[in-house]
Amino acid sequence: MDRLLELNPADGVAVVEPGLILDDLQEAARRVGWYYPPDPASLKECSVGGTLATNAGGPRCVKYGVTRHYVLGLEVVLPDGQILETGGRCHKNKTGLDLIGMFVGSEGLLGVITQATLRLIPHPEARAMLTATFPDFETAAEAVQAILNQGWQPSGLEITDGFTLQAARDYLGPEMLPDGDAHLIVELDGRRDTILQDLAKLRELVDTLGAITVEEARDPESCEAIWKLRREFSYSLRATGLIKLNEDIVVPRSKLVDLVRFARQLEQDTGIPVACFGHAGDGNIHTNLMVKDYETDPAEKVKADAALDLLFKWVIANNGQITGEHGVGLAKKRWFADAVSPVSVEVHRRLKEALDPKGILNPGKFLG
Amino acid sequence: MDRLLELNPADGVAVVEPGLILDDLQEAARRVGWYYPPDPASLKECSVGGTLATNAGGPRCVKYGVTRHYVLGLEVVLPDGQILETGGRCHKNKTGLDLIGMFVGSEGLLGVITQATLRLIPHPEARAMLTATFPDFETAAEAVQAILNQGWQPSGLEITDGFTLQAARDYLGPEMLPDGDAHLIVELDGRRDTILQDLAKLRELVDTLGAITVEEARDPESCEAIWKLRREFSYSLRATGLIKLNEDIVVPRSKLVDLVRFARQLEQDTGIPVACFGHAGDGNIHTNLMVKDYETDPAEKVKADAALDLLFKWVIANNGQITGEHGVGLAKKRWFADAVSPVSVEVHRRLKEALDPKGILNPGKFLG
Repeated sequence: MDRLLELNPADGVAVVEPGLILDDLQEAARRVGWYYPPDPASLKECSVGGTLATNAGGPRCVKYGVTRHYVLGLEVVLPDGQILETGGRCHKNKTGLDLIGMFVGSEGLLGVITQATLRLIPHPEARAMLTATFPDFETAAEAVQAILNQGWQPSGLEITDGFTLQAARDYLGPEMLPDGDAHLIVELDGRRDTILQDLAKLRELVDTLGAITVEEARDPESCEAIWKLRREFSYSLRATGLIKLNEDIVVPRSKLVDLVRFARQLEQDTGIPVACFGHAGDGNIHTNLMVKDYETDPAEKVKADAALDLLFKWVIANNGQITGEHGVGLAKKRWFADAVSPVSVEVHRRLKEALDPKGILNPGKFLG
Repeated sequence: MDRLLELNPADGVAVVEPGLILDDLQEAARRVGWYYPPDPASLKECSVGGTLATNAGGPRCVKYGVTRHYVLGLEVVLPDGQILETGGRCHKNKTGLDLIGMFVGSEGLLGVITQATLRLIPHPEARAMLTATFPDFETAAEAVQAILNQGWQPSGLEITDGFTLQAARDYLGPEMLPDGDAHLIVELDGRRDTILQDLAKLRELVDTLGAITVEEARDPESCEAIWKLRREFSYSLRATGLIKLNEDIVVPRSKLVDLVRFARQLEQDTGIPVACFGHAGDGNIHTNLMVKDYETDPAEKVKADAALDLLFKWVIANNGQITGEHGVGLAKKRWFADAVSPVSVEVHRRLKEALDPKGILNPGKFLG
């Protein structure tokens, strides 16, 4: 925790070294009533530096936005050894170009971040949640649209498909999840005195949306139990014994149903099960191809890679994005040029050349 | 309105040409229950393109963030005539570098934005407001800290100093503003059924913070009347007959009081009245030097420019920023190099050179 250099509610900032564990930052802020929203599932293991490099997201981004929205200042060592200080501790800043945006999400290709000043916001006083199961994914996706169309700004809005639910029932016991082929989590945050009234009103709406079961979580322990269940989905998929190729693709929100229909078709065509779950509110659905022996059996790898090609081809053809919060890295490098336009690739190369003309930073990654 | 190419609640996006008037976009979204938050005071006259070029803000940025947070996709004509399409209609996107951030706020130096895909969010169902007057600015600034420390996330948090209040009383009539040497506006948004309970709870807090008067606005008309009064502050300053040199400086939030004390000292030292009001929540205080004959009397201009030098020098020495939402342009060009580090200036030049090697776009501006 000595990597948390300063925690300053009066300015609404935390100054950190990149090695700080994200959960330690969030806990330190929470203890003084302040909040750092970005919350990737890896928050107990990941470093803040990693979240800066990938512009990480998480379930609460649907309301609070991604990491970039919380970076006020950076210290960066440039490839030529110069130290760039940009931004600071002010909550607004239009002095020059957005150099912070250049480095946040740049996956180590432009500079090495050595310090960051992060924006904190007042911690919501209370949270409350609904979970609902639906007969099919289509009805759950319609519920997502209905909730947003009624002016709700949930702090979490997560959807899960039937394959993932069955894996969770197998792993955790069937009593953990009511019947249904799709599952929705809706979280609200707000004031202690009124959040349960808001929750009751939200429930009135959800009760009209074709759910099989609707359950409420009205206190912090029940809410935490739901998030714990949500995190178990990933482990449940691993417990199938298959290898999970987790692609954090994004689709326009109106295409959630199309994505899952495509996933079912892909499953039929390739014989590879596909599990979809994730951040319904921003269309960022983790699409997991469940394969055998990806690393050890060359034939399985060829088959899986061909299926991934079909997935990314579909995503790109449907105005989607190949990565919402994980980054390109090596894993998605071969789809990068297809995912952006040739002019975009050229602009990327010009910017890389401008800051790292010798190409010494993170060579071989998506601009390699 | 034919510049509003598409309004799509199912995807949560609007596709616009840059000439669209911001207020027309907001109204069109509101009519279908959706919300585009950036709200500079010029929203009835400014184009969306202008807000993209300056990464514009406004009072509601304290909760909702600035323009950059609402841009999902751009079409940009580059200096060499190529057309760059970047991003799209997905609400998350980590495919490559943040090219959108490169162009939003770039003040026309890197490319010409010809189309933008903007993120809409569900429109809050209801709003309610408090206004309070305080015996002095210090007490009002302490109230700002207390409200945020209690976990409130106001959708507006505006502070006004005594000079501005007196100008408003002179212009609008003394009955429009209760006694006091500082004024605070706090806006909440949320659900229709619970917002007045939240407001009552907020009032309980504000009643303990040393205010002279506290008033509530519990319906849309009363809220609009407060925002109208707030907008009149600027006209009231103009009605003094003096010329208003409006600098949208930013300070760390803990330095609001220091800023106003400095303004009073500057007033004494230079004989130029200084009016401070603006976005207390993010430390973005419009600091207005009230001068005579700036354009016509060379001696007055020299005096005013010297006072501006002192202001910006103080801002920079106090970890502030010279512009929060207006941009550098020509008006603040001579302070740009002092406001950022020499390494930052070099990085700016390298990026400009990478995209506009012939320097044909907006020549003579802050990188000229």
